[in-house]
Amino acid sequence: MPKSFGSDNHAGAHEAVLRMLSAANAGDAHGYGDDPWTNQVSQDLCARFGAASAYFVFNGTGANLLGLSLLVRPFEAVICAESAHLNIDECGAPERLLGTKLLPVDTPDGKLTPALVASRLGGRGDEHRAQPRAVCLTQATELGTCYSLAELAALGEFCRAQDLRLYIDGARLANAAAYLGCTLADLAAQADVLSFGGTKNGAVAAEAVIVMNPDLTETVPFHRKQLLQLGSKMRFSAAQFAGLLENEIWLANAAQANLMAQRLADGLRDVPGVTQRYPVESNAVFAELDPRLIEPLQHEWGFYVWDEPQHVVRLMTAFNTTAADVDAFLASVREVEASPSRV
Amino acid sequence: MPKSFGSDNHAGAHEAVLRMLSAANAGDAHGYGDDPWTNQVSQDLCARFGAASAYFVFNGTGANLLGLSLLVRPFEAVICAESAHLNIDECGAPERLLGTKLLPVDTPDGKLTPALVASRLGGRGDEHRAQPRAVCLTQATELGTCYSLAELAALGEFCRAQDLRLYIDGARLANAAAYLGCTLADLAAQADVLSFGGTKNGAVAAEAVIVMNPDLTETVPFHRKQLLQLGSKMRFSAAQFAGLLENEIWLANAAQANLMAQRLADGLRDVPGVTQRYPVESNAVFAELDPRLIEPLQHEWGFYVWDEPQHVVRLMTAFNTTAADVDAFLASVREVEASPSRV
Amino acid sequence: MPKSFGSDNHAGAHEAVLRMLSAANAGDAHGYGDDPWTNQVSQDLCARFGAASAYFVFNGTGANLLGLSLLVRPFEAVICAESAHLNIDECGAPERLLGTKLLPVDTPDGKLTPALVASRLGGRGDEHRAQPRAVCLTQATELGTCYSLAELAALGEFCRAQDLRLYIDGARLANAAAYLGCTLADLAAQADVLSFGGTKNGAVAAEAVIVMNPDLTETVPFHRKQLLQLGSKMRFSAAQFAGLLENEIWLANAAQANLMAQRLADGLRDVPGVTQRYPVESNAVFAELDPRLIEPLQHEWGFYVWDEPQHVVRLMTAFNTTAADVDAFLASVREVEASPSRV
Amino acid sequence: MPKSFGSDNHAGAHEAVLRMLSAANAGDAHGYGDDPWTNQVSQDLCARFGAASAYFVFNGTGANLLGLSLLVRPFEAVICAESAHLNIDECGAPERLLGTKLLPVDTPDGKLTPALVASRLGGRGDEHRAQPRAVCLTQATELGTCYSLAELAALGEFCRAQDLRLYIDGARLANAAAYLGCTLADLAAQADVLSFGGTKNGAVAAEAVIVMNPDLTETVPFHRKQLLQLGSKMRFSAAQFAGLLENEIWLANAAQANLMAQRLADGLRDVPGVTQRYPVESNAVFAELDPRLIEPLQHEWGFYVWDEPQHVVRLMTAFNTTAADVDAFLASVREVEASPSRV
Repeated sequence: MPKSFGSDNHAGAHEAVLRMLSAANAGDAHGYGDDPWTNQVSQDLCARFGAASAYFVFNGTGANLLGLSLLVRPFEAVICAESAHLNIDECGAPERLLGTKLLPVDTPDGKLTPALVASRLGGRGDEHRAQPRAVCLTQATELGTCYSLAELAALGEFCRAQDLRLYIDGARLANAAAYLGCTLADLAAQADVLSFGGTKNGAVAAEAVIVMNPDLTETVPFHRKQLLQLGSKMRFSAAQFAGLLENEIWLANAAQANLMAQRLADGLRDVPGVTQRYPVESNAVFAELDPRLIEPLQHEWGFYVWDEPQHVVRLMTAFNTTAADVDAFLASVREVEASPSRV
Repeated sequence: MPKSFGSDNHAGAHEAVLRMLSAANAGDAHGYGDDPWTNQVSQDLCARFGAASAYFVFNGTGANLLGLSLLVRPFEAVICAESAHLNIDECGAPERLLGTKLLPVDTPDGKLTPALVASRLGGRGDEHRAQPRAVCLTQATELGTCYSLAELAALGEFCRAQDLRLYIDGARLANAAAYLGCTLADLAAQADVLSFGGTKNGAVAAEAVIVMNPDLTETVPFHRKQLLQLGSKMRFSAAQFAGLLENEIWLANAAQANLMAQRLADGLRDVPGVTQRYPVESNAVFAELDPRLIEPLQHEWGFYVWDEPQHVVRLMTAFNTTAADVDAFLASVREVEASPSRV
Repeated sequence: MPKSFGSDNHAGAHEAVLRMLSAANAGDAHGYGDDPWTNQVSQDLCARFGAASAYFVFNGTGANLLGLSLLVRPFEAVICAESAHLNIDECGAPERLLGTKLLPVDTPDGKLTPALVASRLGGRGDEHRAQPRAVCLTQATELGTCYSLAELAALGEFCRAQDLRLYIDGARLANAAAYLGCTLADLAAQADVLSFGGTKNGAVAAEAVIVMNPDLTETVPFHRKQLLQLGSKMRFSAAQFAGLLENEIWLANAAQANLMAQRLADGLRDVPGVTQRYPVESNAVFAELDPRLIEPLQHEWGFYVWDEPQHVVRLMTAFNTTAADVDAFLASVREVEASPSRV
Repeated sequence: MPKSFGSDNHAGAHEAVLRMLSAANAGDAHGYGDDPWTNQVSQDLCARFGAASAYFVFNGTGANLLGLSLLVRPFEAVICAESAHLNIDECGAPERLLGTKLLPVDTPDGKLTPALVASRLGGRGDEHRAQPRAVCLTQATELGTCYSLAELAALGEFCRAQDLRLYIDGARLANAAAYLGCTLADLAAQADVLSFGGTKNGAVAAEAVIVMNPDLTETVPFHRKQLLQLGSKMRFSAAQFAGLLENEIWLANAAQANLMAQRLADGLRDVPGVTQRYPVESNAVFAELDPRLIEPLQHEWGFYVWDEPQHVVRLMTAFNTTAADVDAFLASVREVEASPSRV
């Protein structure tokens, strides 16, 4: 299969991740996180985030569910963007596993604002209404945009003033850090809990749940187990993060993906029949294509049609995307565009 | 850490598993199972089990929950041994995630029988009672025993006669296959659904859910996603099983663990102050120890006290346990036993 | 308290309902529905609706949850109007108790259409997406409008074509029957399951779940018990319906409430500062009021501000609303409107 | 149907309850408990129990679920008697609606003791185990026995020492009060939350949830709504309790039922082929019958076979059971016993 622009999870694992898996395989170790790898890497994560505690889980949906399980009771609701992974792409797991209601909000660019959050705060104190209690941001968003630190600060302040807890879905947090040029602690400062994605960044299958609010750590182990996210040979989850954190590979991986998305966006800018959507602030490019372009391009290159009626496609880059990959794709776009319509 | 007898998940990963992870890392691949590794290995599993379909998940509790989600509705109950992992060691995940009631039965040796199952069949048709609908066996059991093929056949016949569905928790199914000298298809023949454990057999973190009853395959993908068990880079889950299936390593691994448990049991037989419990039919030895032995042995060797009041400890072997490991442990037991009491 | 226009549940019970409670109190009777009252009244309901079976529950939310529990599995979603009671006023009970996701749709008048339903059918077959499986209509709607029989037929046809099941929240079904001049069977013809509200029609606390699709009856008793809706002295639930069904009191009650809503709407039509919303097709009148009218009117008359920013109030009539009540209210509105602003 | 000994819910409603329903039907009233009847009766209950707050619900299972929803999170477990209604007769509602695990304990007489509770406290702090957090007593028990105040005090002290919360299922609390000759406050003193049953005492369908621990009141309205227990015309629930509380009818009703159970027990004592089980401390008599007696007696009199293999039947009395009823039943027993076997 040629380089895919379909998803950052089409990329394999970074070699440092596989190398660390082998390194972690020396001898026996206690299970369920009582091992040196888990201890050390979770401490490293805590230090980087300024967090109270950090926990490894298997996938992004697991991280989101574990994080939110710390924040809401079943009669409490979670405000999120309509486009959020939590709302669209988790097959109703939040509803089934937490029993909680999501209160989605339409957004122009995948980003919530205090005003948008406020629009879903009706009915507080009314027993007939699910009670808004948490806000879920995605950083970077599903639409490839990033909250600036100022936007995060404004949302954090609003949430504290409104007694709302703040969760950040950080499946692509590394891409946001690379884009914003800030630390992980900067990104996490407003959150009660957040996730830090390893898989899209080059891991095999590893995500971390980062608990910033120290009042929330006590029940994590039980929720993690009950939500099917407790790995027995946990050293191997920790080792994947060890591989990414070593020499700041996580940041280099994210920066490379972002750079390739910029190159892609730049290259598409002057192609007739291609209109970009959303600022390119991480590793995704959304573009409305002349309908006749879609089928031949999809035939050759993997990508998803994000919005069928509007002919919008999503192009994702990854840590292993190269300039040559992007240029080959761009050449293909130009060629298809220039060819006479097949219809 | 010296060789642990605490759990088969204290062992690391088999080298073939790590090797296959690297092999699977060649190039991009589609996510969520739409890749050649997943296709091929799941087909291999289907062929071995005579199954309708096979699915990869992250851990044993995830496999159990996904399996049972296919078999029961919330008002339906699952009959299992009191000692079952499902009942004791999953932090109430079945109740939380399926909403189902477990109907546990005391067993002498971890094994259900038709008569024991029948003891929990009261109240069928009575709307006040959770309706028994599935039976969960564990093969090999938490107590290290195995159901013979005849016992499985009798339970299967009973379940069909009683309109009960049969699930087998096969976290240690390989050990049962090695002990019984039978095929995986033999072990699965009576089941509607079962799990096939990779992790305790030498994987990093991989289990399979094997669906025998073709009527039950349709909803698996949705339950798997909603139960947080859908891996994005699934080729790496498949690759772990590829490593274990290659050259029948899974069977050699299980046979080695079983053999070491036998060696351990043989060596403990004539030690004063040590009384074994349960037949040793897989990779676990349960033994009541003179209380004065426990603390010094635990200090040196990792193992769990299974039953505190009765001074029963559980000793597990793994694919990487060697005869030298067992002999060193046995020497240690004899030495502690022979030393004057510290009290 | 003067006659309330706040809700049709502010009205008490019809005298026939209380009389039947007394009548049902003669001697002992078996519990949980195995009694002559339950048998006879549920048969009567089945005959009127052309239903497979009918069940009594305690309240409207209970009826909705029981009805939907027959139609969806946890990974399946329910399409409903954004304004639906199910979505807004049940404190997240559908999410908590069924684990299901609601897919709400904005509607101009509380009514779904095939096109609006179609707008939420994306992602069928995609394991990441909650699978649309049921449509929930409300008849009459929360906004006081009614689906015509033709509209119901079109929705029914669409649902069958799309393999969607149809549930009707009939908390005010009687009002729809009175408005449309049709039978209960006409209203139910397209539905798999529906509720038939007694409480707002003059009962103390009684609703019925009507199962039209005979394939769905088998599990009702278990879901009803598990969802806390099984009454032990069920004859008293049945008796309440007996009171309403006797001499078609249910229809007279609904017709009176509807008539009073029409009188109210007519009387408000020419009042300055009052703009009506939505056609008045049952027992509710929605009106945008000049903001200065709201506080003094609310001080004297109970009603709810439905939409605070838009100054829309909801005025409900009930079976016990009289022409004198309406006229007194209208006089009060005109008086407040004519008085100089207090501000 | 002749007087039933099958269940105390076979009795109808006390006339005072129906009278109060009519009295509460004067004029309109706000819904959902914001009415004078609800306010006054719940205050009366609070005063009698020394409670922080009191809430009306529809049935006993609803009361139990609402009460426990205040005490446990999904990973926390409830210790109860194996014979508890919660465990046996609620169709798995605790598991489905709370997601919690029950930890049942075999008891000789339906009563837990500190030692029996202690037997289920293993694994606290271990993430693999559901965490024991609440104890559920039933007063009077399903087996007709009562906890003495000293037994309650010992259990309360044990629970506080072990950081366990205490819930009392008081579906037949009135019978316990009558038997023990104590106040409702005495019965409730150790509990965090308890239920107070109206239905078996002569109501149509009304139970109260009594919250003793003031820290637990805040979330009750939301849990009540979400658990389908919020009645719209709540004045009618309150009025039922008003009927029972007036002139201490509740206590007279319970005392009459208890007295009739004693009369029944006394009368059965010397009948050959009848062996009583359990002390008769409320309104239930359990007796092992010579198998040949069961069928002819059941043909004439309604009662349940509690334990089929052991030929144990349950005989319940109610507030409306008369001495003549008991004597007629006893005559029937003696007659059947004396008649030659039909077999």
